[in-house]
Amino acid sequence: MSALDNIRVVLVGTLYTGNVGSACRAMANMGIRHLRLAAPNLQNSWDEGERLAVHATDILSSREEFATFEEAVADCVAVVGTTAREGLYRQHVKAPRDCAPDILALAETGPVALVFGREDKGLLNEEIAQCTHLIRIPVSEGYTSINLAQAVLVTCYEFFTATGEYKPPHEKAPPAPQAQKMQLMKNWAEMLIEIGFMKPEQTEHFMQGFHRVFSRGVFTRDDAALLLGVARQAIWAKKSAAGN
Amino acid sequence: MSALDNIRVVLVGTLYTGNVGSACRAMANMGIRHLRLAAPNLQNSWDEGERLAVHATDILSSREEFATFEEAVADCVAVVGTTAREGLYRQHVKAPRDCAPDILALAETGPVALVFGREDKGLLNEEIAQCTHLIRIPVSEGYTSINLAQAVLVTCYEFFTATGEYKPPHEKAPPAPQAQKMQLMKNWAEMLIEIGFMKPEQTEHFMQGFHRVFSRGVFTRDDAALLLGVARQAIWAKKSAAGN
Repeated sequence: MSALDNIRVVLVGTLYTGNVGSACRAMANMGIRHLRLAAPNLQNSWDEGERLAVHATDILSSREEFATFEEAVADCVAVVGTTAREGLYRQHVKAPRDCAPDILALAETGPVALVFGREDKGLLNEEIAQCTHLIRIPVSEGYTSINLAQAVLVTCYEFFTATGEYKPPHEKAPPAPQAQKMQLMKNWAEMLIEIGFMKPEQTEHFMQGFHRVFSRGVFTRDDAALLLGVARQAIWAKKSAAGN
Repeated sequence: MSALDNIRVVLVGTLYTGNVGSACRAMANMGIRHLRLAAPNLQNSWDEGERLAVHATDILSSREEFATFEEAVADCVAVVGTTAREGLYRQHVKAPRDCAPDILALAETGPVALVFGREDKGLLNEEIAQCTHLIRIPVSEGYTSINLAQAVLVTCYEFFTATGEYKPPHEKAPPAPQAQKMQLMKNWAEMLIEIGFMKPEQTEHFMQGFHRVFSRGVFTRDDAALLLGVARQAIWAKKSAAGN
């Protein structure tokens, strides 16, 4: 079982079903599947929520609803509140990336609530006071108010990446070894003289430039093989044209 | 000037104004302010886009529009495509967190495009082929299709956090030094005996437990002062009650 299975996303006093639906899709993207609504205060029909959940309607339909915040988090071993504001009870706030590993360790032992407040007012002081951990998403000082579903996404993203379950894509082709690169430089020098791009006495000067170009970033065996092919073909084309 | 000022968010062939508006708000949250639309294919009016931009309508109204992808990225020193798929041209994809520092370094030198494809089809192969860098947002295998504005948010978030401009909130109160903790243990032991919670010969046993409780996580000077106050008051209350 993944620690993510013990995460409960708890939306408190949410106003718009669209945000609930978008939050479901965001949760599904990040492998988190348990949604709770605490004292929902929904102002529109579920049509928009279902539309925005797209292929995550199973998360929406299996949501649990609670009359109060207290009931929604009663079984949780950690209650992680999200806040955008400074102030009372909010001194010990951390960035989600910094506390995700510790909180995931708690999620190995029991349910953990990630709690998100109302679209307009966030979490109330009395709710903040009941949280065991507080997090604040890093945002620009120019515009600190983040959309509810966007906040759910970034938070879930940090927990998902902290699991290490996602294997980042990587270069499939191995990097070219030095010997192959030197062979490439040698063949290119031969080709560049053959096609009249440079004179033999200019070799050192120009090859420094080509070596610089081919040494930027990862340069794979495939890259080297491709460019060796160019040199061979150019030499063949020149010689066979001369022979005609 | 921040490197973020050189970031251009380029939305290609976008279908829905709501996603453009939500992308504007996400950009503003992450300190990125320049939006370009390439060959937009908008199916609805700007009302929804303006509504979802909320306080980022300045980004929406100062957007630049281009007839083609090529024109939208022509002045950029790096063209960073986002893709959710495997396949042709997509072997060298990296996670945004892994490549953000290198791309930010390029953004110190000139405009850098972060390119996001269509809601339904993403970027086309011929567009992917023109990108200098490719990134894929880490997502769960269970649901890899991420909403356009959510993809813009996570990508901008990674570039924003990579600048190091955001100073994470931290504990304002300094941690309690060992001497203060030991003083606390001594006063609590005295108090617990005074109020009859434990007998003097049980001190070692119980104080191990209290020391364990008070040693979890950061324990500040203020925390220690608070608990010292409890011990003093309990002793005072017991003694003054006994005196009555």
